[in-house]
Parts: sequence; structure tokens; C-alpha cells
Amino acid sequence: MKQVTLGSYIFRRLKQLGIDHIFGCPGDFTLNLLDYIYPEGLKWVGTCNELNGAYAADGYARTKGDGTPGVVITTYGVGELSALNGIAGAYSEHVPIIHIVGTTTRAAQKARTKIHHTLGDDGWDHTIYQKMSEPARRASVFLTNDATFTEEVDFVIERAYQTRHPVYLFIPMDTPDIFVPSDRLESETLNTEIINVGREEAEGAVVDAIVTAMSSSKTGALLVDVLSQRYGLLDQVNQISDLWNATTFIAPLAKSHYDETKANYGGIYNGILTTEDSIKTRIEDADQVVHVGPLLSDSNTGVWTQNLSPENSIVLHPDWILVNGIRHDLSFVPVVKRVARALMEKKQVLMGGNETSTSASQNTRMHFEGRLDHARLWKCLSGHLKEDDCIVAEVGTAQYGALELRLGARNSFLTQMFFSAIGYAVPALLGALCARREQGASGRVLFLAGDGGLQMTVQELGTIVRHGFSPTIVLLDNNGYTTERIIHGPTLQHNDIARWDHGLMLEFFGCQTSKYYQVREFEELEKVFQCPAVLESRTPQLIHLYLGEMDCPAVLVKKSRIGKERNMMALAQSDKEFGRRRNIVQ
Amino acid sequence: MKQVTLGSYIFRRLKQLGIDHIFGCPGDFTLNLLDYIYPEGLKWVGTCNELNGAYAADGYARTKGDGTPGVVITTYGVGELSALNGIAGAYSEHVPIIHIVGTTTRAAQKARTKIHHTLGDDGWDHTIYQKMSEPARRASVFLTNDATFTEEVDFVIERAYQTRHPVYLFIPMDTPDIFVPSDRLESETLNTEIINVGREEAEGAVVDAIVTAMSSSKTGALLVDVLSQRYGLLDQVNQISDLWNATTFIAPLAKSHYDETKANYGGIYNGILTTEDSIKTRIEDADQVVHVGPLLSDSNTGVWTQNLSPENSIVLHPDWILVNGIRHDLSFVPVVKRVARALMEKKQVLMGGNETSTSASQNTRMHFEGRLDHARLWKCLSGHLKEDDCIVAEVGTAQYGALELRLGARNSFLTQMFFSAIGYAVPALLGALCARREQGASGRVLFLAGDGGLQMTVQELGTIVRHGFSPTIVLLDNNGYTTERIIHGPTLQHNDIARWDHGLMLEFFGCQTSKYYQVREFEELEKVFQCPAVLESRTPQLIHLYLGEMDCPAVLVKKSRIGKERNMMALAQSDKEFGRRRNIVQ
Repeated sequence: MKQVTLGSYIFRRLKQLGIDHIFGCPGDFTLNLLDYIYPEGLKWVGTCNELNGAYAADGYARTKGDGTPGVVITTYGVGELSALNGIAGAYSEHVPIIHIVGTTTRAAQKARTKIHHTLGDDGWDHTIYQKMSEPARRASVFLTNDATFTEEVDFVIERAYQTRHPVYLFIPMDTPDIFVPSDRLESETLNTEIINVGREEAEGAVVDAIVTAMSSSKTGALLVDVLSQRYGLLDQVNQISDLWNATTFIAPLAKSHYDETKANYGGIYNGILTTEDSIKTRIEDADQVVHVGPLLSDSNTGVWTQNLSPENSIVLHPDWILVNGIRHDLSFVPVVKRVARALMEKKQVLMGGNETSTSASQNTRMHFEGRLDHARLWKCLSGHLKEDDCIVAEVGTAQYGALELRLGARNSFLTQMFFSAIGYAVPALLGALCARREQGASGRVLFLAGDGGLQMTVQELGTIVRHGFSPTIVLLDNNGYTTERIIHGPTLQHNDIARWDHGLMLEFFGCQTSKYYQVREFEELEKVFQCPAVLESRTPQLIHLYLGEMDCPAVLVKKSRIGKERNMMALAQSDKEFGRRRNIVQ
Repeated sequence: MKQVTLGSYIFRRLKQLGIDHIFGCPGDFTLNLLDYIYPEGLKWVGTCNELNGAYAADGYARTKGDGTPGVVITTYGVGELSALNGIAGAYSEHVPIIHIVGTTTRAAQKARTKIHHTLGDDGWDHTIYQKMSEPARRASVFLTNDATFTEEVDFVIERAYQTRHPVYLFIPMDTPDIFVPSDRLESETLNTEIINVGREEAEGAVVDAIVTAMSSSKTGALLVDVLSQRYGLLDQVNQISDLWNATTFIAPLAKSHYDETKANYGGIYNGILTTEDSIKTRIEDADQVVHVGPLLSDSNTGVWTQNLSPENSIVLHPDWILVNGIRHDLSFVPVVKRVARALMEKKQVLMGGNETSTSASQNTRMHFEGRLDHARLWKCLSGHLKEDDCIVAEVGTAQYGALELRLGARNSFLTQMFFSAIGYAVPALLGALCARREQGASGRVLFLAGDGGLQMTVQELGTIVRHGFSPTIVLLDNNGYTTERIIHGPTLQHNDIARWDHGLMLEFFGCQTSKYYQVREFEELEKVFQCPAVLESRTPQLIHLYLGEMDCPAVLVKKSRIGKERNMMALAQSDKEFGRRRNIVQ
């Protein structure tokens, strides 16, 4: 019987699935596992800390975009818990991650040894950390039984694909060197497909109902949402859009998932936070809405103000399908594929005349003057985008502003808008850069971040420099936490931050060829974006934009105001009910 | 009835207890709570991210040293989970922290709203994060019922003191503005004392037995351990040492908890990892050992090789007392105090002639030449310590090396040796600096860190600069993760890190007056330590030491070798038993 070590088995499986980069930090409980990375041709990308490793794995998986999980490896306890918030964010936004934790030996587990990295309670149960992270994953395996190692590894990898959520693989440090049978590596291809097992008939009926409804629609609208991207369905969604020829909208979290320069692009539908009334009216008045891949959170629905009638909505979700009021417990993956195929077989475009936009495929460059402000910044930046630019935005003003960028088919956009863990973006940028290198992606990578968010995870810029990447960093410096100031306490000290000398940043992080531009006026910004270094982005560089402390994208102000008004109304009512007094701080 | 807002109530309680600094990051679910910090005279120290906030609160609490908890405030989910590893570390090493989490409103909890910062599951239970952190605390309160707010807040604060472990206080964002009765603030003093309720008699008997045993000892030894410091018992331990006049040892985690220049100081007792056999023999051969405040983990016992017979050991632990083989379920706090008092009442020193050391109170300065190495570095640094220096060391080589420093009564030392989360130290330094400012402490603060550990949480140097602190940073640069290289895979890529330009570091983090010294040879180091800036440490400065990639403190090499040997032996036996094949990687 042919054998490989368990360590080799794991990494060979990952390599088979097209994973080339692995993230994390070494620790004494993972060191012998890490031995097996290199012989399998995988690349280790060490992050400065484990939270950043998890964020990087997340950015990697989103960028791969075909269900391929990001992989992060941490050591028991200290590393594992540090990474947890990054795993939770991936869970929240349906991103597959395999979190491999190198644990204590099985002997120490059995003896309940109070070893370092434990909480030190007497009779320490070594699986307590596993229990702590349980809500942030869809499956976990703690390897204990030699006889089932390979099946268990395969199971958990498959679950990452099938659920598009994080999974955990706990590997006691006495196991990676053990020889296990290698036959499954050749005989068993991992099942990464999502099918509605034994439900083909029900699926067919649903597909028919959907196509019929679409065919009889006159003013239909397609709403592309974020889970279409997560489940690798963007090609099909584009086919459906073309063949149905419906006006096509995106939800905020689906930014860049539809070509905004196409004639039938309708805009971002964000409930009452939709920027133009005409966009809102067009989709809400459609005789048939097809909504693919919804993630129905406050951040993606204009704080739950989507106003689409279930009676004329087809909603295609990973776990259920809604066809004009009737719910079916089916995964949307095969259904979306079959709908696209069915429309293709019709060989005709269903609706005509839904072109709402006559935009050229290139962004028009507009000329602005004077001090930078958010009201014009995003229009200005749109004019300087290139058609294959990738944009990565930190949580906060950068992310909300970037919604206003006009993105074409080859642009991509990465942010974390629902879980909204500030600090996500620098490590996610690293992950995206690694995935893009695997993909042979061309084009610049523009990184947008506020000065506050940047401080959270700034050190990963060093890793980006180390690995020879050359993003263009656009720093939106508003001297503190403006996103928080807009919500409450604009002048309070906790919304201020340390002033750093950003001009030294890239050099400090080891880049000897970096460039630095300080920009206060639109005229300067235009010049910067026309200089060859920025046009070509061959070295890491920093464009430092100075913005007002209370200046931020309009949608953020509106969102904050509406949120506050609603909250105050609800509180006033509840206080009256309970006869409660409250201090009202404006 | 007099009333205050709940927010004011909480912060007034904390202020009453002598807490002046609070750590954390703002977030939308905490913003209205934070309004109430400033009117109570508390200082907010915003950290760059929440993990750092937890580490800072930990460093603050350890430095206060009298049971006063550190306080960290984070927002629901994203902040709360990011901080978790810092809270776990505090739990592991018996450090009281109050982690205040600003949560969603009670209305959103009731409606199970899928709001941002949640994991996005349908029917989201807003208390899931509370469940996740449960093993890392000793108490938690999730405020839901207006009628009991003040009692619940008081309860959880008292639990932090009484358990010397973290506690959690979850504050829905609709509650801080609510007016609550203020009477308890005046009528009820918080109970922060630890007593053996109703057990005074049993306690008395135990105290008598201990004093009798000590009195009849001829060659007794006192072992000072870390929990003595955590429970504020160092004065009593010193009295006991003086009055008993026993040779007094410290455990590794108790570094700086006993004056190493005293005549009866015996050394660090670390089982088979004890640096000198004579130290080991002296304590193991004592006719009576009194061990105060043990934390019996691998890191503190020479990997469980303490060899002290229970039959002639008195062990005083927070939850139990062992008197020469007999266990009593009593807290050691009142017992240690009563033992000290009883010895004092005897008005005579019990044993004479136990002076083992004839050291002068000042460290002797030794002269070294040539390239820096760990074998001589710590002796060299000892010679340059001042009597009121505070030393903060990062996990890894810095921490193990610092064990070799010779510390006097007024020196203090802060590290995290049992939980060993690398990255702990920069934020913990911030916390320690805040606590020292409250205490009016004089003396320099020397911060020792490896280049790898420093990268984990480096941004908090910006916060240190921002608040006008002036630590002297001693960077032990060995070009990567040497602590891991010593264990396994010395040449593997995952133990390498990005090269930063440390000369720019402090300036990048906003310090315009910083100094930078590069040191490769002992002669240079001597000069640096004699220059006025370093002697007085009035500005942040960086002393950059270049060390060999495989050079590290002897104890770390020995510990790693022994750990590995034991592990290999256990594995060989287990493999034989299960008929298992294993790849042996050296």
C-alpha cells in the first residue's frame, strides 16, 4: 500500500484544488506540519499576526471567486483565537476558509496537561478552543483516530466548498509525520460541486416556472447580489442578463459583480439609501424581479428597506428558491445554471428596449478644482480608473465612497461591508494580490483606506512589500475615525487617533523604491493620476489625500441619520412604555 | 430619588476603585456609552485595534498589582472577538480585566435582527458571542432588566477583583443613557476583599500549623511565585522572607517579585531548567518549603520538573492551601496575611545564617568585547540597569533572556510567559506606562522585543508616542522567528520575516525627537548605555541590537531540547503500540 505522511496528504489535497498560497504564522504546535508545505509546491505567506492571516485567507478566497477556500494555519490557542474575528467575518460574508490549527499532542489531550497556550484551568480540556469557535464555521474535524485521518481531511475540505463558509481542521502535533494511505489522492476526486441530490425533478419544475415567469415579463429587472459571486455564478448571471435583457441592478455588496458600463445596467439598489429615485422606482415597479444571491443584512438592503414584492420576485439563494411567493428548499447553484442554459436554448433575447444607460465603456474624465471633498472625489477617481483595475477598500469611508466608482466588466472590487471589521483590508489586499498572481491577472491594484482603519493592521504592508507586490495606496486622511464621528460624538477624543508620518511608511516597511504623493486639491490629484508611476503602478506607492474631518460619502451620512432617527423613535416608544427616563445626547 | 445615567454609574464605579485609564476602540455600538467616560475624570486610551486594547488592559492591571482590573471597551462582534485572545491570556495568567462590550439594542436582540457585525445566520441569537468567550472569564452580565442594572454592574466588577480573572459586561446600546438610581454609589462600597467567609476558625488552625512548621525548620526555603503578585501579597511575602529569614527563591513567572540583591535571595527555581545545580539542590533539599502563589504550568516549573516533596511543602494557592500533605479549601489571601502577622508578633527572626548571596545592591558592570551574543548580553545589560528601571519583555528570546537580569527591589518586570501570545508586549507596555503614570512611578522603562514579535502589534508604538511616553526600546534583531528556529526548521521560510527599516520606525509613528542606535558589538552597547539620552530616557528611543539568527538564551535551547526529546520518546512508544510508521524530521 502506498503511503504519504499526513502532512503531505493535506497539502497535496490543497494543491490538487488549485491552491498555491497558504497564510498564517508559525508556532511550536504547527512547526512539524509546516515542513510538508514546500515539497508539495505550495507557497507560504507568513503574516505578521494571525488575525491578519485570516483576513488574508479571506481576501484570497474572494478573489479566487470559484469556491476555492483560503487557507490559514495557526497554532493552538494564542494563534487560533487571534484569528477568530477574521474567520467570523468570512462566515458572515459566505467566504470559504480552511483554518488549520496545530494543537497539542493527543497524549497531552488525554492527560489534560496544563501546557502553555492553555487557559490554565485544572483538568484542562484541550478541545475547549474548538468549542469557542464553533459558531464561526460550518464543519470541523479534530483528528484523533489514525484510521480515519484521510477521510476526515477530505470531508472538511469538501465542506468548505459546499457551504462556502469556514471550516476548521485541528491537527494534533503528533500526527503530521504519521504515514497514511495515499490511495484516495488518486482514486477519489474531492467533491466540490453543489447539487440538489435526488431533486432533479423538483429542480426542473422550478427552472420551468422561473423561465416562464421571465418570458412573460415586460418590465423585468435583474438584481445581482453578492452570493452569485461567492458561488461562482457570475458568468451565468451575465448570460441571464443578456438573454433576458432586463435592466440589471446590483446590491451594494455586489459592487463590481456586474459591468456598470453596459447599456442595461440600472444602478445600485439599496432601498431608501439608493442614490437616485429613478433607480429605486425602476426596480420596485418591475413586473418581475429576479434576485440572484441575496445576503439580506442591513448593509445590503438600505437598512431593510428593499421594497420588492414577494409575489413578483424570484429569489435565488444558496439554501432556497422563492418563485413569486412559493418557496422551494433547493440550492440556487444548479438552478441558476439551468435557467441560463434554458434561456440560451431559446436562442432569442426575451425583452428588448431595456437599455437605460448609454454610457461609453470608458469612464469620462471630469475636471474638478479646489480642495478635495467626497462629493466630487469619487467621480474624479472614476475618471482615472483603468479598465482592469482592481479596487480593495477598507471598511468605512473608503468602502462607501467606492460604491460611487463606475466599474466595468474587468474591474474587481473587494471589501467587507456586512461584517464590517475595520482592519480587514490591508491583509485582505495581501490575499487578493496572491490570488491575482496565481490568476496571472493584469492591471493595477488600488487600495483605498482611511487613516484610522489603516492603523489597525498596517504591518501587513511589510508583507506586501516583501513579496514584491506593487499596489497603489490611496490614503483618505480625515484625521481620525470619521465614520464614527458621523454617527456620534464628532469632537470626542476617542474618535481621534495618533498622527503618523505617512511619508515614511512604505520605506519603514522595507520598500526602497516607493513613491509618495501628498494631495490636497483636485488639480494635484489629476496630475498624480497622470504620472507614469501611478499609471503603471510598478512599485508600491502612497497617494495621501487630505480630507475634512467631517467629510464623508453622502450615503454614509444618510445611512447614519436614518439609523439614528429610527433608533431614537424606537427608544422613545419603549421608554414611554416602561416609564423610563433617558439622557438625550445629540 | 437621586439618579445618574447607567453610563455615568459604570464609570463612576471604576473611578471609585482607582482606575484612571480605559483602553479600547470606539464602534457604533459603544459610542453613546463612551460619552460618559470624560465627565467622570477617566482617560480614554484608544488603541489601534482591539486585541491591542485587551493586551494594554492586561499590562495595566499587572502593573497596578493590587487587584485593580484593567478595562477594555469594544464593540459587538468585530471588536469583541478581536480582543478575545488578549482576554484569554489574562485569564491564563490570573489578570483581572473588565471587558465591556457595547452590544445591539435589546429590541434588535428580541427581534433577532441580522444587523452588521453578526454572523448573518437567520434567526441570529445576539448572545452567541457571549457564549463563545465564556471559557475566558469568571463572570459575565448581559444587561437586560432595567431594575437590576446597578446591582449587576457591581456584581461583575467585584467578581473581577475577587477572582483575579477577566469578567465581561455586555451593555446594549439602548441602555447607557437610561437614568438609574445612584444611591448605591454612596451607600454601597464595592467588596473587593478576598476572605474565607465563615472559615476564620479553620483559617486560624492552618495559620498555626504553618507557623509551627516554619518555626521548627532549620533549612527552610521560601519560593515566591507569580500569584503572590497578582493578589497583592508581595509586601507580606517580603515580611515572611525577612522574619523567617529563609533562602528565598522565585519561580520564572515571579521574576522581579523578590529583590535579587538581598542577602537571602537564592535564585530562580525552574526544575531541571534551573541554571545552576546548587540552586536546585538548595531548595529541593530544604527541610521545609513554603511556596506562595504557584501557577503550575510547564513554563513555570521547568516543564513539570519541580521536585518538591508535598510532605514538607506548604503551598499557598488562591483556592487551596497544602500544609505538608494536607489540603485545605481556603483562599491563600487571608492566610498569607495572617502568617505574616503571626511572624511579626513573634518579634524575632526564626532562622539565621541563610544568607546565600553577598551581592552588593548595585549590579557590577562587566566589560565585554566583540560581537553581541546572548551568552553575555544579559550580564552586560544587568550592569547597566538602574535601580528603578521597569523592564517589559516580549514573548520569546527577550523574555527568556530577561530572566538572567539581576533585578532589585525597585525594579519591575512584565511579560507573558505561560500563555505566551507573541505580540503581547507592545500593547502591554502601553498599559504599564499608563498605570505607572497613575502611580507616579519614577525610573526608565526598557522594552525588550525580538524583531518577529515586534511586527505583530507594532502600531501601538504610535499610541505610546501620542501619549508622551518615552520608553527605551531594545530590539533583539535576529532576522526572524529564532524562538521557532530553535525548536524546528531553522532554515525554513516560515521562520523568516519581512525586513523593515527600523531606523525610521519611531519617526513614522509620529515621534519627532526619537533617537536610534545600531549596535553590533559589546563596546558599542556600553557606549550607548552611557550616553545621557539613554541614561535619562526622556524621549522614545530605539537601541537596535544585531544578533545571530540561531543565537538565543541558553535556557531556551535547553527547554526546547528537553521538550523535543521527551516528545520523541513518547511518540516512539505510542507508534510502537499502534504499529504506526512515522517520518522523522530533524
